Amino acid sequence: MDNKASIGGVAHGGAGQIAAVVKQLMDDNAVRLPHDGRNGGAPLPSHEEVGKIISLSRRLLFPGFFGASGLNEANLLYHTGIAVEELFNTLRSQIAAGLAFGHDRERPLCEDAREIAVEFMRSLPGLRSVLFADARATYIGDPAATSVDEVIFCYPGLRATVNHRVAHRLYELGVPVIPRMISEQAHRDTGIDIHPGATIGSEFVIDHGTGVVVGATSIIGNNVKLYQGVTLGARSFDRDENNNPVKGVPRHPIIGNDVVIYSNSTVLGRITIGDGAVIGGNLWVTEDVAPGEKLVQARPDNILRFKQ
Amino acid sequence: MDNKASIGGVAHGGAGQIAAVVKQLMDDNAVRLPHDGRNGGAPLPSHEEVGKIISLSRRLLFPGFFGASGLNEANLLYHTGIAVEELFNTLRSQIAAGLAFGHDRERPLCEDAREIAVEFMRSLPGLRSVLFADARATYIGDPAATSVDEVIFCYPGLRATVNHRVAHRLYELGVPVIPRMISEQAHRDTGIDIHPGATIGSEFVIDHGTGVVVGATSIIGNNVKLYQGVTLGARSFDRDENNNPVKGVPRHPIIGNDVVIYSNSTVLGRITIGDGAVIGGNLWVTEDVAPGEKLVQARPDNILRFKQ
Amino acid sequence: MDNKASIGGVAHGGAGQIAAVVKQLMDDNAVRLPHDGRNGGAPLPSHEEVGKIISLSRRLLFPGFFGASGLNEANLLYHTGIAVEELFNTLRSQIAAGLAFGHDRERPLCEDAREIAVEFMRSLPGLRSVLFADARATYIGDPAATSVDEVIFCYPGLRATVNHRVAHRLYELGVPVIPRMISEQAHRDTGIDIHPGATIGSEFVIDHGTGVVVGATSIIGNNVKLYQGVTLGARSFDRDENNNPVKGVPRHPIIGNDVVIYSNSTVLGRITIGDGAVIGGNLWVTEDVAPGEKLVQARPDNILRFKQ
Amino acid sequence: MDNKASIGGVAHGGAGQIAAVVKQLMDDNAVRLPHDGRNGGAPLPSHEEVGKIISLSRRLLFPGFFGASGLNEANLLYHTGIAVEELFNTLRSQIAAGLAFGHDRERPLCEDAREIAVEFMRSLPGLRSVLFADARATYIGDPAATSVDEVIFCYPGLRATVNHRVAHRLYELGVPVIPRMISEQAHRDTGIDIHPGATIGSEFVIDHGTGVVVGATSIIGNNVKLYQGVTLGARSFDRDENNNPVKGVPRHPIIGNDVVIYSNSTVLGRITIGDGAVIGGNLWVTEDVAPGEKLVQARPDNILRFKQ
Amino acid sequence: MDNKASIGGVAHGGAGQIAAVVKQLMDDNAVRLPHDGRNGGAPLPSHEEVGKIISLSRRLLFPGFFGASGLNEANLLYHTGIAVEELFNTLRSQIAAGLAFGHDRERPLCEDAREIAVEFMRSLPGLRSVLFADARATYIGDPAATSVDEVIFCYPGLRATVNHRVAHRLYELGVPVIPRMISEQAHRDTGIDIHPGATIGSEFVIDHGTGVVVGATSIIGNNVKLYQGVTLGARSFDRDENNNPVKGVPRHPIIGNDVVIYSNSTVLGRITIGDGAVIGGNLWVTEDVAPGEKLVQARPDNILRFKQ
Amino acid sequence: MDNKASIGGVAHGGAGQIAAVVKQLMDDNAVRLPHDGRNGGAPLPSHEEVGKIISLSRRLLFPGFFGASGLNEANLLYHTGIAVEELFNTLRSQIAAGLAFGHDRERPLCEDAREIAVEFMRSLPGLRSVLFADARATYIGDPAATSVDEVIFCYPGLRATVNHRVAHRLYELGVPVIPRMISEQAHRDTGIDIHPGATIGSEFVIDHGTGVVVGATSIIGNNVKLYQGVTLGARSFDRDENNNPVKGVPRHPIIGNDVVIYSNSTVLGRITIGDGAVIGGNLWVTEDVAPGEKLVQARPDNILRFKQ
Repeated sequence: MDNKASIGGVAHGGAGQIAAVVKQLMDDNAVRLPHDGRNGGAPLPSHEEVGKIISLSRRLLFPGFFGASGLNEANLLYHTGIAVEELFNTLRSQIAAGLAFGHDRERPLCEDAREIAVEFMRSLPGLRSVLFADARATYIGDPAATSVDEVIFCYPGLRATVNHRVAHRLYELGVPVIPRMISEQAHRDTGIDIHPGATIGSEFVIDHGTGVVVGATSIIGNNVKLYQGVTLGARSFDRDENNNPVKGVPRHPIIGNDVVIYSNSTVLGRITIGDGAVIGGNLWVTEDVAPGEKLVQARPDNILRFKQ
Repeated sequence: MDNKASIGGVAHGGAGQIAAVVKQLMDDNAVRLPHDGRNGGAPLPSHEEVGKIISLSRRLLFPGFFGASGLNEANLLYHTGIAVEELFNTLRSQIAAGLAFGHDRERPLCEDAREIAVEFMRSLPGLRSVLFADARATYIGDPAATSVDEVIFCYPGLRATVNHRVAHRLYELGVPVIPRMISEQAHRDTGIDIHPGATIGSEFVIDHGTGVVVGATSIIGNNVKLYQGVTLGARSFDRDENNNPVKGVPRHPIIGNDVVIYSNSTVLGRITIGDGAVIGGNLWVTEDVAPGEKLVQARPDNILRFKQ
Repeated sequence: MDNKASIGGVAHGGAGQIAAVVKQLMDDNAVRLPHDGRNGGAPLPSHEEVGKIISLSRRLLFPGFFGASGLNEANLLYHTGIAVEELFNTLRSQIAAGLAFGHDRERPLCEDAREIAVEFMRSLPGLRSVLFADARATYIGDPAATSVDEVIFCYPGLRATVNHRVAHRLYELGVPVIPRMISEQAHRDTGIDIHPGATIGSEFVIDHGTGVVVGATSIIGNNVKLYQGVTLGARSFDRDENNNPVKGVPRHPIIGNDVVIYSNSTVLGRITIGDGAVIGGNLWVTEDVAPGEKLVQARPDNILRFKQ
Repeated sequence: MDNKASIGGVAHGGAGQIAAVVKQLMDDNAVRLPHDGRNGGAPLPSHEEVGKIISLSRRLLFPGFFGASGLNEANLLYHTGIAVEELFNTLRSQIAAGLAFGHDRERPLCEDAREIAVEFMRSLPGLRSVLFADARATYIGDPAATSVDEVIFCYPGLRATVNHRVAHRLYELGVPVIPRMISEQAHRDTGIDIHPGATIGSEFVIDHGTGVVVGATSIIGNNVKLYQGVTLGARSFDRDENNNPVKGVPRHPIIGNDVVIYSNSTVLGRITIGDGAVIGGNLWVTEDVAPGEKLVQARPDNILRFKQ
Repeated sequence: MDNKASIGGVAHGGAGQIAAVVKQLMDDNAVRLPHDGRNGGAPLPSHEEVGKIISLSRRLLFPGFFGASGLNEANLLYHTGIAVEELFNTLRSQIAAGLAFGHDRERPLCEDAREIAVEFMRSLPGLRSVLFADARATYIGDPAATSVDEVIFCYPGLRATVNHRVAHRLYELGVPVIPRMISEQAHRDTGIDIHPGATIGSEFVIDHGTGVVVGATSIIGNNVKLYQGVTLGARSFDRDENNNPVKGVPRHPIIGNDVVIYSNSTVLGRITIGDGAVIGGNLWVTEDVAPGEKLVQARPDNILRFKQ
Repeated sequence: MDNKASIGGVAHGGAGQIAAVVKQLMDDNAVRLPHDGRNGGAPLPSHEEVGKIISLSRRLLFPGFFGASGLNEANLLYHTGIAVEELFNTLRSQIAAGLAFGHDRERPLCEDAREIAVEFMRSLPGLRSVLFADARATYIGDPAATSVDEVIFCYPGLRATVNHRVAHRLYELGVPVIPRMISEQAHRDTGIDIHPGATIGSEFVIDHGTGVVVGATSIIGNNVKLYQGVTLGARSFDRDENNNPVKGVPRHPIIGNDVVIYSNSTVLGRITIGDGAVIGGNLWVTEDVAPGEKLVQARPDNILRFKQ
């Protein structure tokens, strides 16, 4: 009957149905706006703008590897200047949105946002040398890597580490939500999920990485290497009177220096893995491991072999 | 010799080689178009348009969190109206393409596509309240979550659940391929792979999520929580006379209410996990688990510790 | 005080701080450009252009499934011709950038890049029939798949296999970095990480796939199926006098024909898995498996069950 | 008071004012949708899509000059095939929209649109040779032109002529509105306003062109040249009983072969300018001009010169 | 010698030359920033954003003709609501930038900008009925027009009139620069240059329009029609002690009601053209014209005809 | 019959018709590629890239007015550096394409293109001071202008002058086609058509501008002002043995210093307009005008007034 509908717009019947759906969605008691609508529609941080924060940071940390191609000593200053300014402006507005997201705030956010942005910018040179050390450690430890450049340019483990170090710095500076958004972008791109609260030492290496989980209160020493599928998780939560988990309690492992944890192993609870320990793959570790200790699966005991 | 080639286009030699490759690719017996070319090039569903279906749905389900920023009570109606209309039009055309993909159909697809689209739209308010309950359950169970808003805004587990509930509704309505495309988009973004056929109860929570696999005939009760790397899979397939798996047979687990399954555990086959059961991490479960039962790895027995 | 700052640009204070950060970043000793800046800013390969290589290849390998919709026998020639030319041009420039990345080269790269591009183009018909066979094998083995078309159109396992076969061909042709970029794009999209150096036979199937890792020197036979989370890894590295891993030594498994490896199992070292072997899930395998042998977890022994 | 408003969204006061404006605009009696809303929102032709019609036509008429660069004999077929198909599809949908715009139609438009599109496509080779002749004539007559290529590539006179010849063909085929949209695009780009109804012979040249107006019922012979600011207009309209102009009456000049009209002259009414006539600049011509006659301004008589 | 330069970036020599040019441009005494740089880089109004103001206004004034296609009675409210809000926000920020451009202001601009934006929004319904009357008058007077819809949809005269009425309203509200930007956009698109200060009555018609100029202090009555190339200009300026023109003095014509001025005529100075007067084409008018008077060129006297 | 055709692609009948049109267009004798296809498809200059040349130049000439907003003394260096480099690279590639367009060249173009690009860049500071003087002169002479900033920011006369001065510099440096493309972009945007060969002194002003034409061999002194519709044209061409115009002969006027030419006047041939002369509007001038002379239309003589 309503042939014209196939040309465009929505035909009469459709229009009525649409109006009905709109009405249902508007009347719905479940509808709630962010902040419960309480500050008149202040914008949330933007996933896209936060992506810009991380990509501008990456560009400044590893000039020439990311962003505009063709950088050389002659033009590096201009590109650095532009990127610093753009990063500063993006940080300022996103941090303000993040502060608005996190709290019922009375005082103006702009000054705070600006100060935090300046603090973060000042951390960039320091972050750069830490991250170059991460890249070098990755190269040295991986027989398949052909150069440090290749690691910087396309290794997902380093990518996730860059996001983490940036996110963690903003987390230290008290910015809500945005650190989490940054770590989720790494999670989406690499399958590596490091909570921005985790404290991680120098020369940190993640190999392959898909499925790695590092919990919020984890503390990791220097020169630690994690393989794919490793979890540093919580064993159990303290619960409050309503049987809900208590927030903010240290509940993830402390990993010493020079530790290697092989693929798909799970390390749970506020335990300590001593310096130089090696944890083999596919293990479930819930108790302390002494310095220098090496754990492996008791293989022969748990595999049945038979001819088909 | 062939200096001009470096300026642009393809130089003479190149042109001949290109023509040869084109000819080979055209002559190739292996070449086959979708539908074996049988309906004159009807377009396949579009990954991009299907992405629009899920992002418009997300925008309507959680107004203000996704899509345009700055929503408030004054403008919510307009934004809802526009998004409902756009979703309806996109659904209509993509469902028609999906129906064409799935079958050798004789009868016109447009009316069917339209009716299915209307049905789906009517489900949105219901989906909204279910998904808010998922978000609340996630918040309550995670000591690191600071608010329900944060869960909605950036938790990958909830993201995958949104995709699943939308995909599953279209699956129930008999739409081919598109539900699968929607679940693959979640898979790509989050590493969580839930088949659109899976039946999932309320207050569903996935934590971290990378590596989770939920098979097509799984049935999951209310208030269930899965950690990263959990598989609800098939143990073996019935095979037909050609030794190929028989399609459509129930082959994945039935999970009761209030069940928790910790990271990297694998639950296989049409077994039943009873209400309130807890399955520890890294387990391989192929037999029924009674209500309230708790399974953990027999740790001390399968780890060898020695000093290096 | 500095009210105008909120309108735009960067206020006075901000300007000073920005200049200071720029100066720090410029003075930083850690700063190094790619190639140590040694060839005047020659551009690196572009992640975006390399993405075009893979998407143009996918379009040519599966015409009508990817790229422009509405392909039919009448227009297939034109679309093929355009895509072949565009792929050739993109390959040529990206291979040249890749060659520059990989080596300190003296001789001009353009001719080499062009010859390699031609060689690669000539492989396309062969790649096409191998990949159709992969898709058919996936369809036959998966009870949830409704058609080969669906597998081609939206299965992540096949997607990763396409990337691998393309990357591996470029790897064989001696192109640096670009194969790795192609495999990392699959890794990012699917969570499947196959090193471009791995040798893989026909009718290769990956199911679900998230967390799969296949190392650089792996050799895989025909008709092999891997489930999610499977690792084919190295057990240990030979180390040189500086205690660094020696590069280029065979260190990953050899998998025979007709092998299935179930989810989350780890196969490590230069061992051989014989033809027709089946490796159950969640296993840790570091020794040879005989042809036809079947390995499963010794389940009853390592799970403790108790009532809560 | 409402400080948050400056961050985003619209503050309370603003929201009320916006709602008031929306209400006024909705209640407004003057509001009328296109077609008086009578066909449920069938889309109008799209200025953007019509721009594509003209740019695809230009690409086919002058291959290598417009559209993709780097065309050569080897790839011309592919580019032609793609552009022909894209033009056909765009024409089909836009002609259908144009037919809907022009009339209260009962019968389906799609078949008509399709037939007209095919007819138009068949005219392309003929249009091509006419337009190459236009370009050659422009080159020959302009001392500043360095090649025919330059004329094709960047002369606004030829650009407007291309638009006219395309628009006129669609006008002949009975398509409403779209020819007018095409001629207005030339008008906007070049300042040359040729009504699509005008009949124009071969080797037509417009120099500079800004301000040229050629009315709907003009008839122009072969080898005619118009300079900037020339008007071929109507002198007066027949008026109907309501004192409105009667539509469709021939009212613009007939220009013979080999005529030149210099800048800013105005030729009005259904008069005839004979073959080979020359009309000087800045003239106001409302009576027939005999073949071979030459008109110039009686200059000395109408300029006063005096020293300041 | 400098072969690498052809690959990318800028070779050594080039780098030095670029640095030299940068230095010259920085040292240049002539360099001055807008506002002489005096407010720290407050952004100028944006040509693009101002284009959005006019296109959103056009969409609200003629719903369904511009902006989203497929509008109908069912969805008009939503589209109106969205466009009103977007227009309000764009106006607010651009008016603030305009106020900053125009003056050395001490007091904050935001409140002023907001009030002006609200005032402007309130004018939209009034502007709509005036502009529909302009469109109707255009249709009635043009034998080539087939419907009022066609006039609204693609007549450049009406397009320029829309821009003028919007620009003039902002001009009345005291907004600097932006009205001029809006009129220049019409100028660019249509060749019609109406100063935003000009006062224009109802049922205003411009035919063809290229080259029309209407000066800042012109006053035009109701039902006036101008053809292409008509100038309403200033004859001479009062000059100040420095021999510069005095700004702000009435210096352009006053045109009565029901006046027609044909193509390329020039009317100069603060003269009055009486109601119902008709001014023929190509005239130079610098003295008052009485009501009902008709002026034509004394044609026979100033054309010389001779045979070639 | 062919219902599926309406869904997508081109139905069978359509496919045959398309193939036929493609064949006709390919067989067409009239088909010729640019350069008669003689250099294997070397790309033509790109209208889009040439647009970038002019917009980057404008950005460097008037920093802060065009390009990125928010420029201040602190970031000016970075923005200048980036824009200089981008301009240099764009010039280099476009000049090379222009040189290929203009000539049958044997020797490599890259070095020439590079040298010309450097030469052009060196002219920028000089062009800047000349153009600021043009802007100041425009401001001083226009009672409607409110500041020099406004003139720079939105006056079409100045816009066309910028394009001309840039185009003329490239013309002097011997670049083919590109200067013409630049002047045609101004023509399209402003209706002002200045041939890049024209020589123009300082403090040049064009008011309103639509319809202005300045021929290739015109020479214009300092402090000259042209109003809309003014033509500086050729009166007649020398013709060669084939009756074609001889290229390259001086044929346009020489305009002295301090001359004003009012709207729509036409000045033709290699005549001289003396210093300080004033030419009134709507005049047709083909003979020398003495220094200080003033010409006006003998108005009373050529207008007939009568009552209707």
